[in-house]
Amino acid sequence: MRYEEFTIEGRNACMEAFRSGKTIDKLFVLDGCKDGPILSIVREAKKQDTLIQYVKKERLDQMSETKKHQGVIAYAAAYEYATVEDILKQAREKKEPPFLFLLDGIEDPHNLGAIIRTANLCGAHGVIIPKHRAAGLTASVARASAGALNYTPVAKVTNLSKTIDELKEQGIWFACADMGGELMYGANLTGPIGLVIGNEGDGVSRLVKEKCDYITSIPMKGDIDSLNASVAAGVLAYEIVRQRINGGK
Amino acid sequence: MRYEEFTIEGRNACMEAFRSGKTIDKLFVLDGCKDGPILSIVREAKKQDTLIQYVKKERLDQMSETKKHQGVIAYAAAYEYATVEDILKQAREKKEPPFLFLLDGIEDPHNLGAIIRTANLCGAHGVIIPKHRAAGLTASVARASAGALNYTPVAKVTNLSKTIDELKEQGIWFACADMGGELMYGANLTGPIGLVIGNEGDGVSRLVKEKCDYITSIPMKGDIDSLNASVAAGVLAYEIVRQRINGGK
Repeated sequence: MRYEEFTIEGRNACMEAFRSGKTIDKLFVLDGCKDGPILSIVREAKKQDTLIQYVKKERLDQMSETKKHQGVIAYAAAYEYATVEDILKQAREKKEPPFLFLLDGIEDPHNLGAIIRTANLCGAHGVIIPKHRAAGLTASVARASAGALNYTPVAKVTNLSKTIDELKEQGIWFACADMGGELMYGANLTGPIGLVIGNEGDGVSRLVKEKCDYITSIPMKGDIDSLNASVAAGVLAYEIVRQRINGGK
Repeated sequence: MRYEEFTIEGRNACMEAFRSGKTIDKLFVLDGCKDGPILSIVREAKKQDTLIQYVKKERLDQMSETKKHQGVIAYAAAYEYATVEDILKQAREKKEPPFLFLLDGIEDPHNLGAIIRTANLCGAHGVIIPKHRAAGLTASVARASAGALNYTPVAKVTNLSKTIDELKEQGIWFACADMGGELMYGANLTGPIGLVIGNEGDGVSRLVKEKCDYITSIPMKGDIDSLNASVAAGVLAYEIVRQRINGGK
């Protein structure tokens, strides 16, 4: 299930990567370039719903290691992504109510890795991340996950709110952490649950928050605003664990 | 209370730093060098109980930015350290039972920063770190603490077990996290407490563990060994918070 991490440079290499079925997290294309081969690569990327970013030549030059990027650089995932269905299947196989993490835009690879590590240890069945504005499964994330990426499936979805809607139809409830929510000790978090963790700076986005059944908060006594995102995820996840062990709040 | 972070290079600059009373976290000295000025600096460092590391010329050259280190480089703290007494005073002033974090060798600046952030938000009165084999208060730690370093005092001690002994005399109980301990939900963590967090790789050292009154464990359901150290600290700290809110387990 493991790949090597790749920065793939040049037209043939990028096209080959798409054709071979490699998971490309992001494609960087020279802005304004209309060459046939580049357009073919972009078409392939769109077909596979890869994130495309059009950038200036200076940016590509700076990213390039070989200095022969020919106007296109792709970032391949260090690990293969699972699907949301793979995650639900894990829960069914273990005969447990689904317990998912949904990360609404975690950008720091250390945080993403630490959260996947927590998801593994608290007994969650998988982690769902969005395609846009979020860290992907790079080698740094794999390192920070301390091996958890080998066990805990991570799915990448285009639209987190839409995924929440689909999972709600399967009976899963969603809880996010936000200031001003009810203290987490008061919410019943024992059933099939998706724990939503917001972005490091901005928290949970409005659209996603509106989908959540519970808005819970971690008690805060201090002088600063918020916990580190991976610490907050751990504290909430373990409140769920405590309630599951206790059979309720 | 804030200083700029410093890498201080050269004989005069290092001597001046010690004389001016700056807190030097670590002094790197050219191995085998017996020059008068170097010996004076080493004497000053020993007087102030600064950690001294003897290194080869290549290492100094590599660390040096100015390339004029003259055989000596000092790392100054980005923040001033508090004393253990300062921390206890905070608890007295707030009329709360002392709640301290003791970090038995946290080496990663991100973890140290995130833990200081957690300490601030969960209402702990301060953080105690050892002088040896541990990250100090560098600029990266300050950044990762998200401002918490401006509020939460951090004390640096030479011998963590000795500090635990002294604090026990003041009625503080100590809990550390370790596999094989009692599940944290079963231990009563409501009184004056010191929460001991172990090193990222090796956990809590034997000497320190033997001093702890409670060895507690976080429930682990997964495939890998342990949580990230700052996540584990957060989970345990918030079990203490929960018990204090509930008035008991």
